[in-house]
Amino acid sequence: MAEWKNLDTLKSFQALTRFKDSVSVKEVMTGDQGARRVAEYSVPMSNGLAYNFAPKQVDDQVLSALKDLAREAELTDKFAELYNGAVINTGEKRLVLHHLARGQMGKDVIADGVNKRDFYVGEQKKIADFANKVHAGEITNGAGEKFTTVVQIGIGGSDLGPRALYIALENWAKTNGAFKMEARFISNVDPDDAAAVLASIDVAHSLFIVVSKSGTTLETLTNEQFVKDAIIKEGLDPANHMLAVTSETSPLAGNSGYLAAFFMDDYIGGRYSSSSAVGGAVLSLAFGPDVFEQILAGAAEADKLAANEDIMKNPAMLDALIGVYERNVLGYESTAVLPYSQALSRFPAHLQQADMESNGKSVNRFGEPVAYQTGPVLFGEPGTNGQHSFYQLLHQGTVIVPLQFIGFKDSQIGTDVIIEGSTSQKKLCANVVAQIVAFACGKEDTDKNKHFEGGRPSSIIVGEKLTPASLGALLAHYENKIMFQGFLWNLNSFDQEGVQLGKLLAKRVLAHETDGALKALSDLFEI
Amino acid sequence: MAEWKNLDTLKSFQALTRFKDSVSVKEVMTGDQGARRVAEYSVPMSNGLAYNFAPKQVDDQVLSALKDLAREAELTDKFAELYNGAVINTGEKRLVLHHLARGQMGKDVIADGVNKRDFYVGEQKKIADFANKVHAGEITNGAGEKFTTVVQIGIGGSDLGPRALYIALENWAKTNGAFKMEARFISNVDPDDAAAVLASIDVAHSLFIVVSKSGTTLETLTNEQFVKDAIIKEGLDPANHMLAVTSETSPLAGNSGYLAAFFMDDYIGGRYSSSSAVGGAVLSLAFGPDVFEQILAGAAEADKLAANEDIMKNPAMLDALIGVYERNVLGYESTAVLPYSQALSRFPAHLQQADMESNGKSVNRFGEPVAYQTGPVLFGEPGTNGQHSFYQLLHQGTVIVPLQFIGFKDSQIGTDVIIEGSTSQKKLCANVVAQIVAFACGKEDTDKNKHFEGGRPSSIIVGEKLTPASLGALLAHYENKIMFQGFLWNLNSFDQEGVQLGKLLAKRVLAHETDGALKALSDLFEI
Repeated sequence: MAEWKNLDTLKSFQALTRFKDSVSVKEVMTGDQGARRVAEYSVPMSNGLAYNFAPKQVDDQVLSALKDLAREAELTDKFAELYNGAVINTGEKRLVLHHLARGQMGKDVIADGVNKRDFYVGEQKKIADFANKVHAGEITNGAGEKFTTVVQIGIGGSDLGPRALYIALENWAKTNGAFKMEARFISNVDPDDAAAVLASIDVAHSLFIVVSKSGTTLETLTNEQFVKDAIIKEGLDPANHMLAVTSETSPLAGNSGYLAAFFMDDYIGGRYSSSSAVGGAVLSLAFGPDVFEQILAGAAEADKLAANEDIMKNPAMLDALIGVYERNVLGYESTAVLPYSQALSRFPAHLQQADMESNGKSVNRFGEPVAYQTGPVLFGEPGTNGQHSFYQLLHQGTVIVPLQFIGFKDSQIGTDVIIEGSTSQKKLCANVVAQIVAFACGKEDTDKNKHFEGGRPSSIIVGEKLTPASLGALLAHYENKIMFQGFLWNLNSFDQEGVQLGKLLAKRVLAHETDGALKALSDLFEI
Repeated sequence: MAEWKNLDTLKSFQALTRFKDSVSVKEVMTGDQGARRVAEYSVPMSNGLAYNFAPKQVDDQVLSALKDLAREAELTDKFAELYNGAVINTGEKRLVLHHLARGQMGKDVIADGVNKRDFYVGEQKKIADFANKVHAGEITNGAGEKFTTVVQIGIGGSDLGPRALYIALENWAKTNGAFKMEARFISNVDPDDAAAVLASIDVAHSLFIVVSKSGTTLETLTNEQFVKDAIIKEGLDPANHMLAVTSETSPLAGNSGYLAAFFMDDYIGGRYSSSSAVGGAVLSLAFGPDVFEQILAGAAEADKLAANEDIMKNPAMLDALIGVYERNVLGYESTAVLPYSQALSRFPAHLQQADMESNGKSVNRFGEPVAYQTGPVLFGEPGTNGQHSFYQLLHQGTVIVPLQFIGFKDSQIGTDVIIEGSTSQKKLCANVVAQIVAFACGKEDTDKNKHFEGGRPSSIIVGEKLTPASLGALLAHYENKIMFQGFLWNLNSFDQEGVQLGKLLAKRVLAHETDGALKALSDLFEI
């Protein structure tokens, strides 16, 4: 059994702190040394991806210290305990099994009398059968017509991950004959969200998936009713249009008001649930079950790498260690995810949840306050768009924000145009390359307004093309990075008690059980 | 003439630093005192909006110190110099006139021999005439058919602002009979961006607006050609489908390849250009020129408030001062914008540019390095979505992130559903109210995992409904806040030299004029 210790009690962490500012990114990325680093400081990932950390503030000494830290923190053992079914989510006393939804990594995991791998595979098989029948026109609306649209009703992890993956693959699917149905998403309790989506689709030919593990998420149940009202208004029966993705014990599970119900369980947290039925149902309907299987297969490949003890063969662990070094030794507070791929436009929003909800904690897994910084603020937009926006601050602002670039050699659609001797795709790649060097090396200028200090660290994940498999690998890479960082910070990365208080107070507001500021603010809104 | 001094040379700033942590948000927001603060710490804005700063770390003493700071920094005088036509953008030696695009505030501004107010009004009139003719079917495609879609081709300020405003008003326009044409946006040089937009529209019935002040923006010119190829492929003449928004001296201006050209000038920076032809053309085509006029009128109302010397009658100045207090006295590095309105889903992305590109600088307006922090990292997503995502870190993380909430009493579309005795809109409002109190007051719990420390400051802008006028006021509020913060930090908020180096290096990459890391990274992408 691994020992769970606070980061600041580890000798190897104390050793690491001695390397604060020992490496100047500007220096090491300049000249031939820079070229050597790009060649050497690269770790292969699965599915044609590679993690390049040449522009990070590390050298062989720092890497050696990070190796020691990984060993002393028993990262590999902790991951093994996790995938072998230990109760890693201590707060909620739950197993953490999102890896198992994409592949068997260790021992059979039996919980609640069930082999959990069989359970996940079984649900995915049910979803695949259902999706195939919808695509074949065997499951239809009340008038016997094919469904053309699928609408996911969910919030948080039931929305951000599946939505990011859908957007990431929509054009790939259209280009590769895998596009089966358009998907839309309703998440916000703002009534304009549901109303706008409903106004933009053909309700009579739409399937709606209600996604809520507990079956009690207020936003989702409210939006479900919103949708049912719209279906009824068209003279249709909601039972012909609604699906549920929920836990077997939820109030939605035994309900006859659904065409079908697919199950998730308590061992996969919302923000990790894209690999479960939460992502499976909507993505299998949109792109076909095969495409969803490819996503899972890519993720499973990345998970295998994450089990390697050698950090130079474990990109997620290395990425995590460098991040902790940046957060706790170098003192950087934020991090930006910058995909040079319009298809990944909502991927940063998903990672924002995955990262900030997992590791935005001040107490360790035993409920004791920690005396060090934990998860960073994470934000991002696709490049090149960001270059014409917030990059100004990243280049010349008073704080240093570590950057995580993502880029692909090829576009998804393949249509392109040659201007000034290069395609748009080449221009896109040239821009990410240029930015990395600009951030790292800067540029001297006697006009200080045009001076770039440089020394701004980044990493890049380079891929051939964004496909279902490489997308799955990318997703798993970040999930595993977050997991390892949680291990290092000694956090429970798998609960989210910080979302509870607001829910409680909102109920009090709606029940008019308020006083003080709560009442005064309610009055502002005439609640 | 106002004197431009660094923040840390101001006596009133030194005085302000003495109030560090003098106010506990938790304490002052609890009990009757909290209710009193909500009532008292509210500043009316224009167009039915109000800025409430009760949950901020301020009291009457701090406010008094902020008043002194506003006076010593001569904020009102500096704004007056700006709108009267001084060369505020010192780096580029330019006037800063986005306010003048929405109303005359001071003296006539004559530049380049032209009355600039007349110029802006004249361009907007040309746009209005053009848009009215398109809507009336007097300007049509080559086959004499009406245009149904308008596509903006632009990046940065030519994209984020207009796009955010379009999304903000799309449902309002549809509900209020003001929806004329669907708008789409192509920004990224990623060829999949243009290809996907083109695949989703009816090119034969689409107008394309090429937006580039200089007429040389690589992304935009590339995407223009991409679009022209698609038009030609349909057997159509691009000259019947293309418009330009550019400066009078740009290569696009005299080009006969456009149906029409509308002009902007060097005195309105990209990120402030939503009020100019950059926003005017696409929004007038989408919603009609009257709606665009309402946006400008709302912004002009907010601008008038920003000219008030009394900070209690100047919400933008007060917001700016509190922000500087938080950044430079309390030491908070990031800030989150959290609109409880799905329509404002991309408003934070626009503010991210407006704020981070304006004030993400390390040198003052004279090109001298400053010894204090400047612009914060800004990010945000709409509530309630964010509640199920990154709010965990905001509530229980190890850093404090000041929060800027926005909320409206009424929805835009008006369709709603009653669940458990309340509408979705009431639930939405109840949630923002609950979050403010949860962040401020926290909740004691012996289980430290469920403990909320509170003390997390926020403000909220409360409105009746998101309309063109209130949206304009909101836009101007933030623009003016950023301007005042730039004055306080003694920055030139109106240039963006930090975006130049990347452009330069990208050109070198595409020309294969690389060595070192630049070459090695180019090789990774096989450029």
